[in-house]
Amino acid sequence: MSETKTKAGLQDVVAGESSICLVDGTKGRLVYHGYDINDLVGKASFEEVVYLLWHGKLPNQKELSQLDAELKKYREIPADVMALIQGLSNSPANAMEILRTVASYAGAIDPDKSMNRDTHLQQSAKLVSLMASATAAVGRFKAGKEYVAPRNDLGHAANFLYMLNGTEADELSVEAFDVALILHADHEFNASTFTARCTVGTLSDVYSGVTSAIGALKGPLHGGANEDVLRMLLKIDSVERAEAGIKDLLAKGVKVPGFGHRVYRSYDPRGLVLKKYAKELTTKQGATKYFDMTVIAERVVLEYFANKGKDLKYNVDLYSGSLYNAMNIPVELFTPLFVMSRVSGWTAHILEQYANNRIIRPVAEYVGPVDLQFVPISKRA
Amino acid sequence: MSETKTKAGLQDVVAGESSICLVDGTKGRLVYHGYDINDLVGKASFEEVVYLLWHGKLPNQKELSQLDAELKKYREIPADVMALIQGLSNSPANAMEILRTVASYAGAIDPDKSMNRDTHLQQSAKLVSLMASATAAVGRFKAGKEYVAPRNDLGHAANFLYMLNGTEADELSVEAFDVALILHADHEFNASTFTARCTVGTLSDVYSGVTSAIGALKGPLHGGANEDVLRMLLKIDSVERAEAGIKDLLAKGVKVPGFGHRVYRSYDPRGLVLKKYAKELTTKQGATKYFDMTVIAERVVLEYFANKGKDLKYNVDLYSGSLYNAMNIPVELFTPLFVMSRVSGWTAHILEQYANNRIIRPVAEYVGPVDLQFVPISKRA
Repeated sequence: MSETKTKAGLQDVVAGESSICLVDGTKGRLVYHGYDINDLVGKASFEEVVYLLWHGKLPNQKELSQLDAELKKYREIPADVMALIQGLSNSPANAMEILRTVASYAGAIDPDKSMNRDTHLQQSAKLVSLMASATAAVGRFKAGKEYVAPRNDLGHAANFLYMLNGTEADELSVEAFDVALILHADHEFNASTFTARCTVGTLSDVYSGVTSAIGALKGPLHGGANEDVLRMLLKIDSVERAEAGIKDLLAKGVKVPGFGHRVYRSYDPRGLVLKKYAKELTTKQGATKYFDMTVIAERVVLEYFANKGKDLKYNVDLYSGSLYNAMNIPVELFTPLFVMSRVSGWTAHILEQYANNRIIRPVAEYVGPVDLQFVPISKRA
Repeated sequence: MSETKTKAGLQDVVAGESSICLVDGTKGRLVYHGYDINDLVGKASFEEVVYLLWHGKLPNQKELSQLDAELKKYREIPADVMALIQGLSNSPANAMEILRTVASYAGAIDPDKSMNRDTHLQQSAKLVSLMASATAAVGRFKAGKEYVAPRNDLGHAANFLYMLNGTEADELSVEAFDVALILHADHEFNASTFTARCTVGTLSDVYSGVTSAIGALKGPLHGGANEDVLRMLLKIDSVERAEAGIKDLLAKGVKVPGFGHRVYRSYDPRGLVLKKYAKELTTKQGATKYFDMTVIAERVVLEYFANKGKDLKYNVDLYSGSLYNAMNIPVELFTPLFVMSRVSGWTAHILEQYANNRIIRPVAEYVGPVDLQFVPISKRA
């Protein structure tokens, strides 16, 4: 039994094979099962990408219609799940804790416990729709508003914005949101996806895998950076004060969110696309304040690190703040949006794990004491 | 960025340091922070072991009293959690799905979201008590019985048996159950514990970590083998037919549960202890049927593999079936018992992960296609 010692956090450790997603950190490329994201953006819908991730091919019209019908079937929130969401929205629970609990609960009440690909695909579709509807419902309840029922004449992205805001979104917002969902759909063995694979590697169920992944994404080192970006902008809240405000943070040694990535050494290709949409949407709306502030933040931070000889880049989170804000999405929902999208990748990885499963069980290097003498409690110091 | 390729399932990969638990697979030893489990069994209580796992030392009387008081404070199930358990007990949900949902829900409604060691210890104590009370409640509700409130004059093991059966258990049952809790408390980087560490490696919260771990333990490759042992015995249900029944399974190529372990090459030290208690308790009760059947299963399976030149050993699951059965614990609760115990180890590892955190993010070896040409949906086959 020879042991392989690794770097902390399994950095650069190949934990398995996957054909779902290629992250080329050096070239700054993101590829979903052979397709560069830049070829998908603006051409394929999020639903097509979901199909691609699950089935390893882009759907034809018939296949897409079938998936679409299935996703629509699951948009309506069951009554007891709705009661759970409503109750938790009036508790100390934050949106991520609610989604985690909803995913677990939905699995508990699902009568189909069988383990086969058809069931797993159906449960995956259920979770993609439920996470979107639940996120919208939480957004409504937390804002003291009534739930808005889904509309099946709308696509996934448009329906979500409708359920959240109660009005139909404009075409550009829908396109930008659809693109944001595509860009966040998968990212190889990121922490939440790897957690999902660890969970189902014991042959546990799809809901367990997604519940674990939501729990992992909830952590500020994974999800949450896009929330931090907008919170930072809202705090400074002025284009004029942006440069000084960011410089002040840097001088204090505060980590400015939205920069750097463990895998990308070149540009984060998702960030480039989101910047384009953030510019276009805020310009069209004539309200570019937070976008303009973000551009300043980008320049100031990159200059700061360039002066230290560091070639830092901005990541996917930097421009999503001003983009989502332009869609009237409250900041507390930014990480749930990530769930709404990444649940497609999580389930794709869960399906892939099942197809060639091996339990994920590494070992620890023991660094504690050995051969301590037991002392009865009456004699302990 | 040099990559380290590993065996499937991260087998033999050192994923990090830990001072909580040493599993010496060659010598067949299990050590909790310096103490051999054979020195703890029959001398220390489960509560003392919980303290040891969390604090890295055995408690003195004052420290134990404080922990004990805290654990007792959290035994009562809050009203909304009780309603959740009751509702799910009357749904298709199994006990593990209920515990997973309860852990997530308990985190959602906890008003203290702060991230510091004191809060994490408090939440860990809450989860140790809640998992026990919830398991007992599920057992009662699933059997169509009323909930039995906890009794604070009893220790953790005795109180659980009381809440489950509605009567005080005899001394030997309490001791044996306490020992079973100790033996299952931790086992290094097993799949559920590693999943918990992956989850909180993003700096997510304790409840997220435990929720993920329950989801992982739910899988039949991890928890569940002890249930399978008793189900197998119940199916054969005769000492006389045991030998033929087991041989029949082996001849059919069925994997007989309760044997073999990825880490132990020598005896599983936990199994030896449980066999002793299973013998003692069933003998005292004058109802040794399932224990006797297990002894036959052990002999038949080991002989079968010895004839093939394989030195197989039985593991912790083999004798826990007849032992738990002698305590009137229904088979559907065997994996939840594992939760009740292992939640102490999960939280110890979560605390250790926080103390020296690095996000757990390996990489995948991409084996899918590259540079596929995008084809619009109207032209796809």
